[in-house]
Amino acid sequence: MKLVRAPELQKFAADVFKACGAPNDQASIIAEHLVNANLLGFDSHGVVRIPMYLGWVRDGVLQPGGPITIKRESPSTAVLDCGWNFGQVGALRATELAIAKARTANVAVIATQRCGHAGRMGTYTEMAAEQGFVALSFCNSWKGGHFVPPWGGTQGRLATNPISYAAPCDGNTIVGDFSTAEAAEGVLRIYRNQGKRLPAGWILDAQGNPSQDPNDFYGPPRGAILPFGGEKGYRGFALGLLVEIMAGVLSGNNRIAQQDGNGFCLLVINVASFQEMTDFNSLISDTRNYIKSSPAQSGAEVLMPGEPDKRKRETRLQEGIPIDENTWSSILEAAQTVGVGWTPSKVV
Amino acid sequence: MKLVRAPELQKFAADVFKACGAPNDQASIIAEHLVNANLLGFDSHGVVRIPMYLGWVRDGVLQPGGPITIKRESPSTAVLDCGWNFGQVGALRATELAIAKARTANVAVIATQRCGHAGRMGTYTEMAAEQGFVALSFCNSWKGGHFVPPWGGTQGRLATNPISYAAPCDGNTIVGDFSTAEAAEGVLRIYRNQGKRLPAGWILDAQGNPSQDPNDFYGPPRGAILPFGGEKGYRGFALGLLVEIMAGVLSGNNRIAQQDGNGFCLLVINVASFQEMTDFNSLISDTRNYIKSSPAQSGAEVLMPGEPDKRKRETRLQEGIPIDENTWSSILEAAQTVGVGWTPSKVV
Repeated sequence: MKLVRAPELQKFAADVFKACGAPNDQASIIAEHLVNANLLGFDSHGVVRIPMYLGWVRDGVLQPGGPITIKRESPSTAVLDCGWNFGQVGALRATELAIAKARTANVAVIATQRCGHAGRMGTYTEMAAEQGFVALSFCNSWKGGHFVPPWGGTQGRLATNPISYAAPCDGNTIVGDFSTAEAAEGVLRIYRNQGKRLPAGWILDAQGNPSQDPNDFYGPPRGAILPFGGEKGYRGFALGLLVEIMAGVLSGNNRIAQQDGNGFCLLVINVASFQEMTDFNSLISDTRNYIKSSPAQSGAEVLMPGEPDKRKRETRLQEGIPIDENTWSSILEAAQTVGVGWTPSKVV
Repeated sequence: MKLVRAPELQKFAADVFKACGAPNDQASIIAEHLVNANLLGFDSHGVVRIPMYLGWVRDGVLQPGGPITIKRESPSTAVLDCGWNFGQVGALRATELAIAKARTANVAVIATQRCGHAGRMGTYTEMAAEQGFVALSFCNSWKGGHFVPPWGGTQGRLATNPISYAAPCDGNTIVGDFSTAEAAEGVLRIYRNQGKRLPAGWILDAQGNPSQDPNDFYGPPRGAILPFGGEKGYRGFALGLLVEIMAGVLSGNNRIAQQDGNGFCLLVINVASFQEMTDFNSLISDTRNYIKSSPAQSGAEVLMPGEPDKRKRETRLQEGIPIDENTWSSILEAAQTVGVGWTPSKVV
């Protein structure tokens, strides 16, 4: 396991994206997004994605610097064509547009088409919350990522479809961000690589039988990852379908999603249209204090959504971001393909 | 167990609410809501509530016919003061207002203050979906209903805070409606009354220890109902908190909620601002068909959210609504207090 300093990693990642054709400002957006995901502990949405992204650029799936245009618009809504630019660039543009619209229209919904992998959802909702908005985001994937069956079904029909939300809280922004499936595919991969059995209730094998062997998911033939919720997985399925409707159907993106990438949808509400921001901050702080006043279970601590991630960020800013040797090698190898090297002295 | 015909039950319930002071049209709204909840199988939100509502009227908690006024408003948002009218009347007014605003503003959010028990959430989202909108609703409760601890906590800080959503689907409206806690309090009550142990993972006793004895929830001292999600209950907690923010904080209702009742918040999106309704219907029908094309697990069937409820409705319209003897007696007894009797011949 290596420990890499965030600023060096970010500069390196930005160099990589510049080298593969992204304009400077956009390369920085992507690099900052990935490194921040690592800092917060969302390693599956961090720099581990670099080789995948470079592969997509090479294959013409992603178009660095691709034009982002508004396809349909009203004062409170828009369908944004992200031109197969990097997903972080498209989703950020969608977020800026949603915030701008919500400043005047009070509520806004932006849905995207032809958006790349948008990364960690909390990035976008948190950005809106820090400007005084309550935000919800929904993210689906094309059919290639459909690992999750409907409740009662055996074959994948939805992706792990995450939901995120964020709300201002007088400087302690609340950020929820989670999958509507029992586990992300990346987590199954780790279990398989370590030769470990899965917890019960996560996957089905290709015949639709419960299994704890991660190889039964990968097959071939491929199994499925169950919707979130165990015996109440019909709720996780319903949530996953809500994501599908918001992120894939409303935008019309599911009609045209024939390659890797996400449908992204952001909903933004202007708190100030309901009450003065100072009143809202006071009331939500009271809620936070009241929640935290619950005695904790033995060995536990009551934390607000997003709080554990912020703690991890502080630690990793100090100590560096841990990256395993295999991941690190694959990143360096990918970077070489666009002529970018890592200066070893920068590794802590 | 009695079987009661829906039309007779609805007329009876409307008579009861008229007799306790509700204007005729409002009495019908409440009665129709309760009986429809029973028809769909949401018995905990059906006529079983009549004695509770009448008690609240007697105690001055509810004010039949109470004025509903807009307290703060923009073209896309409003805070609606429901004047402690019956919650079904207030929430319906909020829904009509949200739909009217979304027709012109494309997106609308209405949050309520001083709203009674709003009942089954799907009522409101489904109404919006049947007029061409995607709708999300959130419902919280005052502190007396705070049975659900935060993740890692032992004392209730949130209610069972349900979420509902609905979307048009070319005549097959999709309706999701579920709690963000592992179980509703009413379900624990049934286990206790039947002397049965609970499934693992539903409750904590007053000391914060896991328990399967429903009496450990009721105490005194009272235990707690865990957030939805088992070992991933932090997600259920995050969802419950989202409901709290939307339904209790945004409206400012948590500042003034000193008695039984709900905070209700409805968000409505005009599908036609994103694409033509025919295109949306075609795309979401494709999604429905694709989902239903998943082979089913042994003994299961792939159904869309809301579909099992609609089937139950068909059956109960034919066969009558089953009501247990104790519940039926308590309803008749409550009705007597406002001078309304049941004509026995109408019982099937």
